[in-house]
Amino acid sequence: MSPDPVRIGLLGRGTVGGAFAALLGERAAAVEAATGRRPELAGVLTRGEGEFGEILERSDLVVELIGGTEPAREHVLAALRAGRPVVTANKQLLAQHGEELFAAAREAGVQLRFEAAVAGVIPIVRTIQESFGVTEIEKVFGIVNGTTNFILSEMAATGAAYADVLARAQQLGYAEADPGDDVNGADAAAKMAILARLAFHTPVTLDQVPHEGIEGVKPDDLAYAKEFGLSLKLLGVAERREAGISVRVFPCFLYGGHPLAPVEGPFNAVMVEAPAITEVTMSGPGAGGVETASAVLGDVVSILAGEAPVHETRAELPLVTDVSSSFYLHLEVADEPGVLADVARVLSDNEVSVKSVVQRGIGDEARLVMVVHECLESRFREAVEEIGGLGEIRSAPRFIRVIEEEFV
Amino acid sequence: MSPDPVRIGLLGRGTVGGAFAALLGERAAAVEAATGRRPELAGVLTRGEGEFGEILERSDLVVELIGGTEPAREHVLAALRAGRPVVTANKQLLAQHGEELFAAAREAGVQLRFEAAVAGVIPIVRTIQESFGVTEIEKVFGIVNGTTNFILSEMAATGAAYADVLARAQQLGYAEADPGDDVNGADAAAKMAILARLAFHTPVTLDQVPHEGIEGVKPDDLAYAKEFGLSLKLLGVAERREAGISVRVFPCFLYGGHPLAPVEGPFNAVMVEAPAITEVTMSGPGAGGVETASAVLGDVVSILAGEAPVHETRAELPLVTDVSSSFYLHLEVADEPGVLADVARVLSDNEVSVKSVVQRGIGDEARLVMVVHECLESRFREAVEEIGGLGEIRSAPRFIRVIEEEFV
Repeated sequence: MSPDPVRIGLLGRGTVGGAFAALLGERAAAVEAATGRRPELAGVLTRGEGEFGEILERSDLVVELIGGTEPAREHVLAALRAGRPVVTANKQLLAQHGEELFAAAREAGVQLRFEAAVAGVIPIVRTIQESFGVTEIEKVFGIVNGTTNFILSEMAATGAAYADVLARAQQLGYAEADPGDDVNGADAAAKMAILARLAFHTPVTLDQVPHEGIEGVKPDDLAYAKEFGLSLKLLGVAERREAGISVRVFPCFLYGGHPLAPVEGPFNAVMVEAPAITEVTMSGPGAGGVETASAVLGDVVSILAGEAPVHETRAELPLVTDVSSSFYLHLEVADEPGVLADVARVLSDNEVSVKSVVQRGIGDEARLVMVVHECLESRFREAVEEIGGLGEIRSAPRFIRVIEEEFV
Repeated sequence: MSPDPVRIGLLGRGTVGGAFAALLGERAAAVEAATGRRPELAGVLTRGEGEFGEILERSDLVVELIGGTEPAREHVLAALRAGRPVVTANKQLLAQHGEELFAAAREAGVQLRFEAAVAGVIPIVRTIQESFGVTEIEKVFGIVNGTTNFILSEMAATGAAYADVLARAQQLGYAEADPGDDVNGADAAAKMAILARLAFHTPVTLDQVPHEGIEGVKPDDLAYAKEFGLSLKLLGVAERREAGISVRVFPCFLYGGHPLAPVEGPFNAVMVEAPAITEVTMSGPGAGGVETASAVLGDVVSILAGEAPVHETRAELPLVTDVSSSFYLHLEVADEPGVLADVARVLSDNEVSVKSVVQRGIGDEARLVMVVHECLESRFREAVEEIGGLGEIRSAPRFIRVIEEEFV
């Protein structure tokens, strides 16, 4: 007989709540394999349906995805006090009422997890709390709002004005109809209050975090900044300063080589600095229904798994050795006409297609160098062997794999 | 009365072992704050000193930093079977005998943790096991050997030959006297065997991972590749392919926009891809005594903390609001001589020093735009207010903070 399922009370069924319910269904078998217990929804509370008390009664664990402070706060406190572990994605709740909630969790001896509240699926909360839980962190900073990063990337790329790019972001779904808290930095400030609290083990609340937004940024500034080699990001920074800490959100220019400079579009990225770790950088999607739901599910699994080692074999997968790749191919060739044609024919006979080619040098220096599109490695090796046998090839062909994917 | 200390048996006192012993001493109070138990060394086993059986007897938890497979394997198995949780940084041990060790840990019901075995202080093991423990991972890949990444970065930057750069890496301490397992890809293969095992929940051992190294890379190849916009990395790749998985290590070209392309020098970086998370990238130092020791300590703390929430306040730190920054300053100025001189004088009177400046446009378009070096924000704001009052300034000055640090 399998053990009892774990019953999950879900509060809220918006974008993230709906994605979580779906993901939980899809991954139920994996959750059971990892934790020994099959999850099932005990009930869902929405504005129109469900009664909180009844759902709580039926639940072993509560997932809060309502957002905002009330009634989320009241429900989370009630769940913790009733001895139910809670997972939430609610940054406002934690940034404004974190101390009260942490105290309730400690008192009840249950877990309160909130990976999804900061930087979506990037596991920055877990990393700071667990991996670096006793590290003397100096600084946590980064891009924790995807809407503003998308807008700034677009303004820099197109030279368009803030209002025009905001309208485009709204069309694409990267900005809300009311973008206020994103563009004025308040959303990022809530996330930084949470990260600062975790990194420095000291209470920090949203109202202690000064924030500036991006509404005042002019295309002009971005154009001038390019001349200095700078790119603009909305940064959240929490750092030790003298005897205290500083936690702020502000638009900030970075030099080209900075690890955060290449982070474009709706992505988030966070860096942690400490003498004992130098620096660790983590980046990924900062929002999105399924990504946020994944972070919530990771927390649920951690609560269920407890201390158990999670190295059970769940599958015996065969190892595939002949995989397809794109390749760089370097040939030392005879300096005479027709070489490219002969090589191209061999490649084409083996269904290998050329992406780019350069022909260079004369006499003993003559080279034919190319990149071919993705093909099965066995196929490519056959073609190379055949090419090696051509009279015009002066030494053994060299090749190196290429990842063809071009990110923008 | 405070609870009993937790006694840690340390096996090995090389670079990492020594750094761990030092770090444990330094962070003992933080470990006690996070876990409720003060750690102390129960004994240290080195080649010349200590007896394993006695140290085990006195230990609550064992940290294995001997490296290699024997006697590390024998000691770790004995510790697990005696009911002691184990933390190890030993990639060879896990890549060759992981199944046996995991089975022993499961049987004894104790934890076996090994964050430091892969990619140093980057928390990739924890992320894959815990955050993404039930995620259908498609691909885990990245740069997991710092020695080869340093060599390839240097070859690309200088055009020097492999052997010359290797010698330089050895001088700088980035390559060992016997660099064999690093440069031939075997070290990366061991790490990929571990990551593949965790990502796909299927047994993978070192001998199943084909690996190619960087010994055959010619400066020539790097020069040609630049023309295609490619940079070379030694990649470890573990991915689902058809009904199975493929796990390999090989030198590989990446296009410029690839998230791994900017990873230079002895750094490591790992990407995880899955439909439900899109992609997450993590980078940081892949080795180093104190960094590796930090990863080991993070595992020790996780074992001691168990399920306890770790949100206790440990300090009440004041919030500092006047912090220093570098700034970008944009001034619309009168098109007449002497403006720069006047502005520069005000800045200098306020001890703000100019880093770069451009003067552009004529008539109504005249602009003076500059970046100033780091200074206290209150100081800078005073200077800006004074500048705003100058007769030659045509509208309110605009400024944006700059992170001055220039990474190479």
